[in-house]
Amino acid sequence: MKKLGKQTYEMANPVTISYAHALVGSKEKNGPLSKYFKDYFEDDTFGEKSFEKAERKMLKTAISDMLLANKINIDDIDLYIGGDILNQLVSSNFVAEELQIPFVGVYSACSSVTESLALASTLIDGGFCNRILCSACSHFSAAERQYRFPLEFGNQRQAYSQWTVTGAGCMIVDKKESQNCPKIKRVCFGKVVDYGVLDLANMGAAMAPAAADTIMEFFKDTKTQPSDYDLIATGDLGKLGSDIFRDILAQNSIVIENNYIDCGHMIFNGNQECMQGGSGAGCSAVVFSAYIYQKMKQKKLKKVLLLATGALMSTTTNQQGDAIPAVSHLIELEA
Amino acid sequence: MKKLGKQTYEMANPVTISYAHALVGSKEKNGPLSKYFKDYFEDDTFGEKSFEKAERKMLKTAISDMLLANKINIDDIDLYIGGDILNQLVSSNFVAEELQIPFVGVYSACSSVTESLALASTLIDGGFCNRILCSACSHFSAAERQYRFPLEFGNQRQAYSQWTVTGAGCMIVDKKESQNCPKIKRVCFGKVVDYGVLDLANMGAAMAPAAADTIMEFFKDTKTQPSDYDLIATGDLGKLGSDIFRDILAQNSIVIENNYIDCGHMIFNGNQECMQGGSGAGCSAVVFSAYIYQKMKQKKLKKVLLLATGALMSTTTNQQGDAIPAVSHLIELEA
Repeated sequence: MKKLGKQTYEMANPVTISYAHALVGSKEKNGPLSKYFKDYFEDDTFGEKSFEKAERKMLKTAISDMLLANKINIDDIDLYIGGDILNQLVSSNFVAEELQIPFVGVYSACSSVTESLALASTLIDGGFCNRILCSACSHFSAAERQYRFPLEFGNQRQAYSQWTVTGAGCMIVDKKESQNCPKIKRVCFGKVVDYGVLDLANMGAAMAPAAADTIMEFFKDTKTQPSDYDLIATGDLGKLGSDIFRDILAQNSIVIENNYIDCGHMIFNGNQECMQGGSGAGCSAVVFSAYIYQKMKQKKLKKVLLLATGALMSTTTNQQGDAIPAVSHLIELEA
Repeated sequence: MKKLGKQTYEMANPVTISYAHALVGSKEKNGPLSKYFKDYFEDDTFGEKSFEKAERKMLKTAISDMLLANKINIDDIDLYIGGDILNQLVSSNFVAEELQIPFVGVYSACSSVTESLALASTLIDGGFCNRILCSACSHFSAAERQYRFPLEFGNQRQAYSQWTVTGAGCMIVDKKESQNCPKIKRVCFGKVVDYGVLDLANMGAAMAPAAADTIMEFFKDTKTQPSDYDLIATGDLGKLGSDIFRDILAQNSIVIENNYIDCGHMIFNGNQECMQGGSGAGCSAVVFSAYIYQKMKQKKLKKVLLLATGALMSTTTNQQGDAIPAVSHLIELEA
């Protein structure tokens, strides 16, 4: 309800994330966050005839399971806001068709989860909606053949590359307060920035400047600093991108210490051959839904900044020589 | 600020579209709306090396010209909300990078203009923003090679096909009232619907059910009827799609008379070989910005419903045998 500085908005009313749920593939289940990922599937086609249909089924299943487990009637949800990284947001759009509630499609690549949650917050705080469903998802094999090479090509992966997470995260954002559920206090919509990275495999380097830009604007707007938060989580910068993120902040005299994680960096371990770590719209969505959200409910984390990060190129812009623009939308959560 | 029925939201405060501007290609300039399209370009590459770069330059030029002509400082704009139909919204995302203000990317294909305006309305009414830039655009040659065939292939066009409009429309949505400028009174976010159309060339048939679904929900939610409006404008159903739209409404005992137009149907004439008419995210954006908006400023139109319509398939879903889902977001305008 109140604008702070140039890019940040503060809620006047409580905006609660009352439920969050994640569904992941087997590689993610076998990573360091295994105990947080309760729901997973083994076969990456999920019994479907294509990876794209598998992604859609995964998103649908994640949402259905969340609604069912918490006895939420779909008709009590005012709006669905979501996005994914397949062309024309087909996973979200096709699932929206099955749900038959009004749908607002958003695209900021792997920043879709925070874009959705930020928009949901403003719609609830503004008095428009009582309950909004948000989601983001990605699927390794579907993303790989759309953005880079088909798996059958068997290309070698660069040391600085990342591995698209197979996973879907979904959340219910509520006007009603619920005990122990984290609230969204402030949101910061990011600017699109571009530091001249041209390599489609080097997502971390392309996205780090966007995350740095947004968090610096946020600190300026809110007169806060890294130590005010229990956790600062970027979306999917990976190891290399996280280092660049830290560097850019350090160059601007902002030091982040041990309260910083990157969802992409933490979702896989060094033995999983994922190079710099995970990426994809599903990456921050599942790490938030399964790990951060649960820690906040248990009050192990109280004040959290989540900055999902998205690289906004297409294969066409890349082939035409354009650098990779990126964006990062931020949400501030409080337990 | 107030929810009406299931899908409609009514603004509590004035939300004004204080400026609107359109830039089109030469084919659009040579059509029936020629006198309303003051700004156009002759060469469809707009002096650029690719159609995609031409689309980007067109969008950037439309926005810059609007800001310059009306002495609007970019720093006075809180947020930019926009979308287009190129993969990964590259036209909007790259222009957002040049503008350097926070950007919210939205995707609902050719319904992007009303999705943007509807979200902008809620953000302004909710007290978050004072001034928001919205836009939508498309380019025939860029869309054709992404969704169907490269132009060099020279394929024959089906009698039921439409012609993607080359054009960019942009608007400034303001908290401040301006004399004679239309206001957004209510918005209705659409559901994704699909009547089983499989043919990528038959966009009108795929989108008509979505427009019908949204307008019927809107009439139910607001207890209004077609005769309450001076004009009802759908986005880009074309001649065939408009007929289907009328038919579906008639089957539901809703009769629309002479107060109905389709932006796609009216933007080209029969001699321009555009078959059923125009389509693309730019279609309703430019017809609204140049024609409907000006008529409203002159008070020749007082109460208007604008329903942009989007087909949400990708080439991949089409190749995998999925039918084409569609959505239509509605805004109600009052002079």
